[in-house]
Amino acid sequence: MRRGDVPVGPVALAGTSLYTGRILTFRCDQPNSMTKTRVLTGITTTGTPHLGNYVGAIKPAIEASQRPDVDSFYFLADLHALIKCQDPRRVQQSRLEIAATWLALGLDTDNAVFYRQSDIPEIPELTWMLSCVCAKGLMNRAHAYKAAVAENEELGHQDMDKGVSMGLFGYPVLMAADILMFNANKVPVGRDQIQHIEMARDMGGRFNHLYKGQYFTLPEAVVDDKVEVLNGLDGRKMSKSYNNTIPLFVSEKKLQKLVRKIKTNSLEPGEPKDPDSCTLFQIFSAFASAEETAAMRTEYANGIGWGAAKDRVFEYLNAHLREPRERYNALLEDPGHIENVLKQGAEKARAEAQPLMERVREVAGLGRFV
Amino acid sequence: MRRGDVPVGPVALAGTSLYTGRILTFRCDQPNSMTKTRVLTGITTTGTPHLGNYVGAIKPAIEASQRPDVDSFYFLADLHALIKCQDPRRVQQSRLEIAATWLALGLDTDNAVFYRQSDIPEIPELTWMLSCVCAKGLMNRAHAYKAAVAENEELGHQDMDKGVSMGLFGYPVLMAADILMFNANKVPVGRDQIQHIEMARDMGGRFNHLYKGQYFTLPEAVVDDKVEVLNGLDGRKMSKSYNNTIPLFVSEKKLQKLVRKIKTNSLEPGEPKDPDSCTLFQIFSAFASAEETAAMRTEYANGIGWGAAKDRVFEYLNAHLREPRERYNALLEDPGHIENVLKQGAEKARAEAQPLMERVREVAGLGRFV
Repeated sequence: MRRGDVPVGPVALAGTSLYTGRILTFRCDQPNSMTKTRVLTGITTTGTPHLGNYVGAIKPAIEASQRPDVDSFYFLADLHALIKCQDPRRVQQSRLEIAATWLALGLDTDNAVFYRQSDIPEIPELTWMLSCVCAKGLMNRAHAYKAAVAENEELGHQDMDKGVSMGLFGYPVLMAADILMFNANKVPVGRDQIQHIEMARDMGGRFNHLYKGQYFTLPEAVVDDKVEVLNGLDGRKMSKSYNNTIPLFVSEKKLQKLVRKIKTNSLEPGEPKDPDSCTLFQIFSAFASAEETAAMRTEYANGIGWGAAKDRVFEYLNAHLREPRERYNALLEDPGHIENVLKQGAEKARAEAQPLMERVREVAGLGRFV
Repeated sequence: MRRGDVPVGPVALAGTSLYTGRILTFRCDQPNSMTKTRVLTGITTTGTPHLGNYVGAIKPAIEASQRPDVDSFYFLADLHALIKCQDPRRVQQSRLEIAATWLALGLDTDNAVFYRQSDIPEIPELTWMLSCVCAKGLMNRAHAYKAAVAENEELGHQDMDKGVSMGLFGYPVLMAADILMFNANKVPVGRDQIQHIEMARDMGGRFNHLYKGQYFTLPEAVVDDKVEVLNGLDGRKMSKSYNNTIPLFVSEKKLQKLVRKIKTNSLEPGEPKDPDSCTLFQIFSAFASAEETAAMRTEYANGIGWGAAKDRVFEYLNAHLREPRERYNALLEDPGHIENVLKQGAEKARAEAQPLMERVREVAGLGRFV
């Protein structure tokens, strides 16, 4: 999806995988609400939001949250975070920073349901129920697990499961619970997440079959390759694992320093430059309007020097980020406010999760006696 | 442990495995309560309690619940039940029957904490937290899983994981949560459950190490081979899977019929009989006093006929079971009462589980922001 577009129909918001990346996004058309489209996005809380997250996921999600015809469920996927991150300060800090980021950028929490996964006890509960209807063979074939096994093989380890926790092995079950809990229907995702949706379908379908009812809507994956992927300082995809990110709300000074570090080439001022292979241009155009982008394209053709171009991009980004950065810093100073917002979000989410879990318990034979 | 003994020190109450049998029992000496011994017993809710359950587990557990120096945690392991039983009526009926059985037999719910596992949302939550610190390799080596793989191998299946769910594969993590949640210390178990305790130790220890604290007491397995195992109608161990059980509270008529079906041999009345190889005698002596048992032994030596012996055993059992059977039937008529008792039990259990989970969340980086 391109900048400025508002998500309409089955369009993915982002699609980097939970295991390798940090943003897990599902867009769901809910069948029951005639006019509303449900968007479900989980953000794994192990890092600091960067420009790539903003462009690929946060911005379109926040825009969606402001639309009356969209029903947004956005959550801090902090139970997922524990799979790969056992540094509590990092997890806690990341949860705070991500929440502050989304709020600073204008997430409409009256219209959107914004919650921490760990505040919804029905999710691990449903995870167990789904475990009992999920074939182990399904998990044997999960990409993240297979990648870990392949790496062990490559490294010549005797134990193919070296370094694999039960969390890593079984997280697609948790993910299925994340999705099935809120009755997603169509789920547009990036290619690397199709498998997760298929697994959720499998578990939901198996539960429906075993217990003879339509308790879970089976999510349908809708592949979307148009997700905007921003490049990082070194020209590769911007990702914490490449250590090439520009954090969204670094100080003005640090932002300038980072923009100056973006890899360009050795063309001199005056020589025409190719915007389409240029990370700097790509980052600029992800934020700028169509007119501003066209103007910059002309500057490239006219041979703008890299130093001048970097200054322009920095100025532009800084002007756009200054206000939300201020709000972000103020929010970080007031964690009590963030806590309250998330608590209210959890209440709204549980208002959906509780009756569903009650029904699921009931049909599995775990209902109340009266 | 022999009939009439009251559990003192590290003595197991029962030790049939969760996977093959129905009673999962842990006896725990809690370190924090100076004078009290903690007993934790989970009963998988997939069947109807039978004489073997009563003698091996229920009776000693109920006796323990009546002692002021014992702190009993007894729970309906209904989340475990879903691994093997996807018949909701059976699970629900079994939960009701087991609860009614324990109450009819005099479980002191003022002194004991009697709850349904599914009423404690902290348990699946802790299960997920432990999954993230549990090596998959540990589960690869679990007995129940290995038995399933061996069976697939024997049957010539290509897929070694055929029929294995994630619930079956990962249930030792749930079991670790059951135990660690209530800070068991010494855990006497039957041989088939040593591994479960070692796994719980492993997960608890790993969590403590990673998060630098003593959040979980590491349970120590204390092997006990003295658990009383009752034989069934066919002389093999009484077990639902052998279809050789005598349900505890069948009607008088049915009880008589079943006792008559107990396998004996072809010795005629007047011929001396060996009590020590006799199932009928074993069942009788599990209920009778030392004097009554000695008297029956003399009758065997004197050549009592099988018909007469069976009548004597039936009369004896029936006299002992009549009153609790009446209470049991009355309880089954009043599921609302059972529901209330279990609800109160859940409140008591959660009074321990909630602060522990809060601490666990906190140290893992999932605490509140203020």
